[in-house]
Amino acid sequence: MCGKKIKMKTIVETKFYNINKKIKFESGAEFGPITVAYETYGKLNEKKDNAILVIHALTGNAHAAFYNSEQDKKPGWWDDMIGSDKAFDTDKYFIISTNILGGCSGTTGPSSINPETNKPYALNFPVFTIEDTIKVQKELLDYFGIEKLYAVAGGSMGGMQAMQFAISYPDKVESVILIATTSRLSPQAIAFNAVGRNSIISDPNWNNGDYYDKDLKPDRGLSNARMIGHITYLCEEAMYNKFGRRLQDKDKYDFNFDIDFQVESYLAHQGQVFVDRFDANSYLYITKAVDYFDPAEKYGSLSNAFKDVNAKFLVISFDTDWLFPSSQSKEIVKTLMNLDKDVSYCEIKSPCGHDAFLLEFEIQTKIIKSFLNKQEGKRA
Amino acid sequence: MCGKKIKMKTIVETKFYNINKKIKFESGAEFGPITVAYETYGKLNEKKDNAILVIHALTGNAHAAFYNSEQDKKPGWWDDMIGSDKAFDTDKYFIISTNILGGCSGTTGPSSINPETNKPYALNFPVFTIEDTIKVQKELLDYFGIEKLYAVAGGSMGGMQAMQFAISYPDKVESVILIATTSRLSPQAIAFNAVGRNSIISDPNWNNGDYYDKDLKPDRGLSNARMIGHITYLCEEAMYNKFGRRLQDKDKYDFNFDIDFQVESYLAHQGQVFVDRFDANSYLYITKAVDYFDPAEKYGSLSNAFKDVNAKFLVISFDTDWLFPSSQSKEIVKTLMNLDKDVSYCEIKSPCGHDAFLLEFEIQTKIIKSFLNKQEGKRA
Repeated sequence: MCGKKIKMKTIVETKFYNINKKIKFESGAEFGPITVAYETYGKLNEKKDNAILVIHALTGNAHAAFYNSEQDKKPGWWDDMIGSDKAFDTDKYFIISTNILGGCSGTTGPSSINPETNKPYALNFPVFTIEDTIKVQKELLDYFGIEKLYAVAGGSMGGMQAMQFAISYPDKVESVILIATTSRLSPQAIAFNAVGRNSIISDPNWNNGDYYDKDLKPDRGLSNARMIGHITYLCEEAMYNKFGRRLQDKDKYDFNFDIDFQVESYLAHQGQVFVDRFDANSYLYITKAVDYFDPAEKYGSLSNAFKDVNAKFLVISFDTDWLFPSSQSKEIVKTLMNLDKDVSYCEIKSPCGHDAFLLEFEIQTKIIKSFLNKQEGKRA
Repeated sequence: MCGKKIKMKTIVETKFYNINKKIKFESGAEFGPITVAYETYGKLNEKKDNAILVIHALTGNAHAAFYNSEQDKKPGWWDDMIGSDKAFDTDKYFIISTNILGGCSGTTGPSSINPETNKPYALNFPVFTIEDTIKVQKELLDYFGIEKLYAVAGGSMGGMQAMQFAISYPDKVESVILIATTSRLSPQAIAFNAVGRNSIISDPNWNNGDYYDKDLKPDRGLSNARMIGHITYLCEEAMYNKFGRRLQDKDKYDFNFDIDFQVESYLAHQGQVFVDRFDANSYLYITKAVDYFDPAEKYGSLSNAFKDVNAKFLVISFDTDWLFPSSQSKEIVKTLMNLDKDVSYCEIKSPCGHDAFLLEFEIQTKIIKSFLNKQEGKRA
């Protein structure tokens, strides 16, 4: 023990809340019961006005910070941002993180058992929207008795949900942090999602979504979809830095169809590990919700969508993010400014592309801390 | 007939030349015989010094201009660029266009019958490189008795081959036209090719390349690969112009996994029509050759690769091409300039992305005509 610094792991538990009623989805479908997997960090104060809802991206889960067990090698996906004296300071705030509706990490999704049939929902799960995912999270806030969030924050798809929260519940949130996100996917981003879904759907093992009791799962389709996704999460610069044209474990070309380049090996690995933790049907449903998100279309214009929001906004984008480029963040900021809303914007220079929101902790911490502190000041 | 202008179709025939010997490939494999499918337009002069070799891109064929029959609805892939008074003027020049080695439109490829087994080569076809594809075209030039090309020109992968021609045969070409090309793929471009290949290889109907006598072909994998490719051929701007977020034949979302957006419909269509005209194994081989192309790596540096070239160069890139961005063309130009070679460069503004070399005829015609005329002037 002498001299060796032991870092204690803080253990958190993923909990489950059951919404024992049906919720009306945007499609018109009424769906329930729904179990919501969630974790919390920090303490809810007596006034219940220090809660921050942190929302994960496409394939994330409720486990945003700390460890679920002593054996865990890695902490939650935003552990560098959530904790004592971190961007989302657990000494001050009560942080809530849930798994998305339709997901496969504890919240009810297509792989969950339909209590009416005792079989997985599969494609009987209703297609849902970003607005629907927010309705589900709102139920959990009601359970906690939280009238108004101190903040809602999310990166990428999590940012879409945070934006929708401010639109759906303008009086229920004080501030909104949107990171590496967009108010609607470009046709190119839709195209990438469509090809990913096509990859799953054209895998014969997908079997029209009915594969849960089969030996063979649509792993190859799902893996390919993930590989496509990963290309869009990295920028050219990140790819040059990480891989260049370096070969994988060899000095010269193999002249066959095995993996030659490091970038191929990386993508193949990302595809492989993904199928062990993610459900192909969840991927279809969640990417569809992302494609559908378009408040400007729904409310007539982005200005109309935002006209009743009361929250203060912090918008962060990354200069090398080509999936949700800064221009899309700037459109959000411009619209809010034209409406005379309280909005701060920061474009961070980063070599990490879209993935930067999961990697650039130092600068994000400074910006978010300052934003949340200012809010505290105004409150006091 | 009164007043109706009848445009006569010029009919050309695809011809075949048999290389009745083995050619040594870069991998070390010796391969032959090889049939080369080719077309020619215009007349070879007596001195045999007016020949221009025009080289197709990834999935093209020898049919570059005019019509193969009266029934053809569309002319060859570069018909707007090849003909009387066009960029490649058939009144002056003898234009040659061949199908690439390993292709599936007449030149020997994996779908061709191996005379030793009377079965398709499939994966017994040797993996080849861009340099090997040039060796094959050089055999055809020898057959014609052409000692020196007036020019070699190509877009995208065709540009790589044109570049390699100048490197492999520095005394056999007067000028080189490189359009929307690169001296090596970025890791991102390799990644897209790798995912496309993975899509084919993970299609169970691919059957380790042995599907030619089967009812089911790896159409789904090949179609998906083509869809991925098409995303990279268009730029964001082109996608917004062509599709935006418009829905396909509907006013509102379907809330299912059918096609919702026009961009999805376009990609699905591109995938479908592709499988009718292209061979999955050819796609694997040709994309691998493209990935492998890297004269800087092969010759120690790009400068070393170019040090003996004698040709004049015209390099054209398009500002919205993100697959082979202008920066990559500029690297070629800079290297040639530092070597004191004769090089002209033009970056064309276009909303068409990488596809621009197949679409922006007017400006390309002006630039190429002027370049070829200047050469003619110097000759006279």
